[in-house]
Amino acid sequence: MADICVGIDLGGTFIKFVATSRDGAASEIFELPTPLDGGPTGLAAQMVSGAQKLVDQATASGDNVIGVGIGSPGPLDLKNGIVLAMPNIAGMVNVPLRDMISEPLGLPAVLENDANAAAYGEYVSGAGKGSDDLVVLTLGTGVGGGIIIGGELVYGAHQIGAELGHMILVPDGAQCGCGQHGCFEQYCSAKFMAQRTMDRIAADEPQTALSDIIASKGSIDARDINEARAAGDAFAAEAWDQTARYLAQGCISLTRIFDPDKIVLTGGMAKAGADLVEPVRKHFADLHWNLTEMKTEVAIATLGSDAGSIGAAGVAWRKFGS
Amino acid sequence: MADICVGIDLGGTFIKFVATSRDGAASEIFELPTPLDGGPTGLAAQMVSGAQKLVDQATASGDNVIGVGIGSPGPLDLKNGIVLAMPNIAGMVNVPLRDMISEPLGLPAVLENDANAAAYGEYVSGAGKGSDDLVVLTLGTGVGGGIIIGGELVYGAHQIGAELGHMILVPDGAQCGCGQHGCFEQYCSAKFMAQRTMDRIAADEPQTALSDIIASKGSIDARDINEARAAGDAFAAEAWDQTARYLAQGCISLTRIFDPDKIVLTGGMAKAGADLVEPVRKHFADLHWNLTEMKTEVAIATLGSDAGSIGAAGVAWRKFGS
Repeated sequence: MADICVGIDLGGTFIKFVATSRDGAASEIFELPTPLDGGPTGLAAQMVSGAQKLVDQATASGDNVIGVGIGSPGPLDLKNGIVLAMPNIAGMVNVPLRDMISEPLGLPAVLENDANAAAYGEYVSGAGKGSDDLVVLTLGTGVGGGIIIGGELVYGAHQIGAELGHMILVPDGAQCGCGQHGCFEQYCSAKFMAQRTMDRIAADEPQTALSDIIASKGSIDARDINEARAAGDAFAAEAWDQTARYLAQGCISLTRIFDPDKIVLTGGMAKAGADLVEPVRKHFADLHWNLTEMKTEVAIATLGSDAGSIGAAGVAWRKFGS
Repeated sequence: MADICVGIDLGGTFIKFVATSRDGAASEIFELPTPLDGGPTGLAAQMVSGAQKLVDQATASGDNVIGVGIGSPGPLDLKNGIVLAMPNIAGMVNVPLRDMISEPLGLPAVLENDANAAAYGEYVSGAGKGSDDLVVLTLGTGVGGGIIIGGELVYGAHQIGAELGHMILVPDGAQCGCGQHGCFEQYCSAKFMAQRTMDRIAADEPQTALSDIIASKGSIDARDINEARAAGDAFAAEAWDQTARYLAQGCISLTRIFDPDKIVLTGGMAKAGADLVEPVRKHFADLHWNLTEMKTEVAIATLGSDAGSIGAAGVAWRKFGS
């Protein structure tokens, strides 16, 4: 008989479910489709249904479920467990999602934003395990962030902190959708890296195999650029390396600010693994100050898309496990 | 009869002493010269002598001294209370300064780095009072920083964090003494702002009253630039405004990362008061994203050079006051 917590990661297409033990060991993760047309009630019912399955399994094994963690896209009112808005599901405005999960299950629950949940997952069970001072950068469509100091997530005074993708990397740089210019995510997200590379190809017409891909399928993504680089395409290599350098520059600023044990890279771009982290490490060493030796390690996440559910369970452990 | 803590701020020229009550109210601050030629023993004796005066006053008033906080230039081993190095005093290598103060006084003591002590002072008694999430930027010869999250100072995993002056503001920008390029302090410290302005005057020979000052006294400082600006000098106004914009850019990144209640500006540049903070606020509003309304306030410190001793006492309260 052991204690477990249930983690739920609410995504735009799938909801993932996991049970974890106190030491972060995770059950097999399963998923259910995200019901997009049932409104708040339909969504909550699907989430309760998946969680109940894990609760029933625990009961059958003689285990004890002590709480549920829910990672959700935002904006959220974390304190009161409320989803303030969720554009892709009708009616998801000011929905008390935490209590809509907690009450039917008869278990305490906690709501966390999905980026923080993923960062916390890497902390409790992934590349950041044992690193109580940790920064996680999610390199996907945008750049998201999670900050852990002394084992605790950082939220900010108004719960709008850890927006690492909107640190300004380049003064008066590329226009960002947020209204600022030169945001980190304009240089280092998978989406914007591909967009910038396409813009350069359109403007300069360089000799590159990426032109053929654009001609045939209309666009390129970060993986196309890395594959062309690996195949010896000089333009692609330069585009990839420039992104790695911008990423390293952001990591230097985060290192000076937080002095973390590790900076963990996750999200779509991080699937490139060593192809990404090795050039980032090279530039990081190159850009690093010489006042102290380099102590912060840049690493690739190990949990991938499982981090969100495992981290949601971890947040429940944090809140209900003592 | 009340409890008090003693704060000591060790500077290169003077040592400042203060006693504070639990609510942060401070006694009149007094100072003694920093003995530069007595080695560690002479330095500690001077510090003990000043602190003993406050202890005696407390005893005479029937008050109870519960601890001593010491703010010191670094590098330090905070945990063990040791000064690792202090270039301007001979023999200050691996000196157990905390215990050299604590033992003669018969009081518990805590060592803190001077930048953190000053930031903590603004938190407990100054412009940041009541702001549990706070960033303090010290704009002096360089740019120093202090970060407070949830009322606690942030140190980093290896106690080399909060080096906000070495965030990278401009990619491949001005060479910094730390070995990096484009550091925040290269654009926003009083020293480097003056240096950059002199470099521009030498290179471009603009029409400016600052040329006359350079011709007569050999150099200019930040105050000269502000005074010329106030007198209507267009070149000086542009130089001052550009610094304010860089400062605002750094504040935007810090806001996205920490979402603090306030960012407090202190140090030599902050003596310009409204002349500095008003243009910084204007650029901060201009550069701010539009995803949420502006909630972080940029403010001028209120304690000036008293922040270090008051904050050192505050650190003692934090450690010994519960």
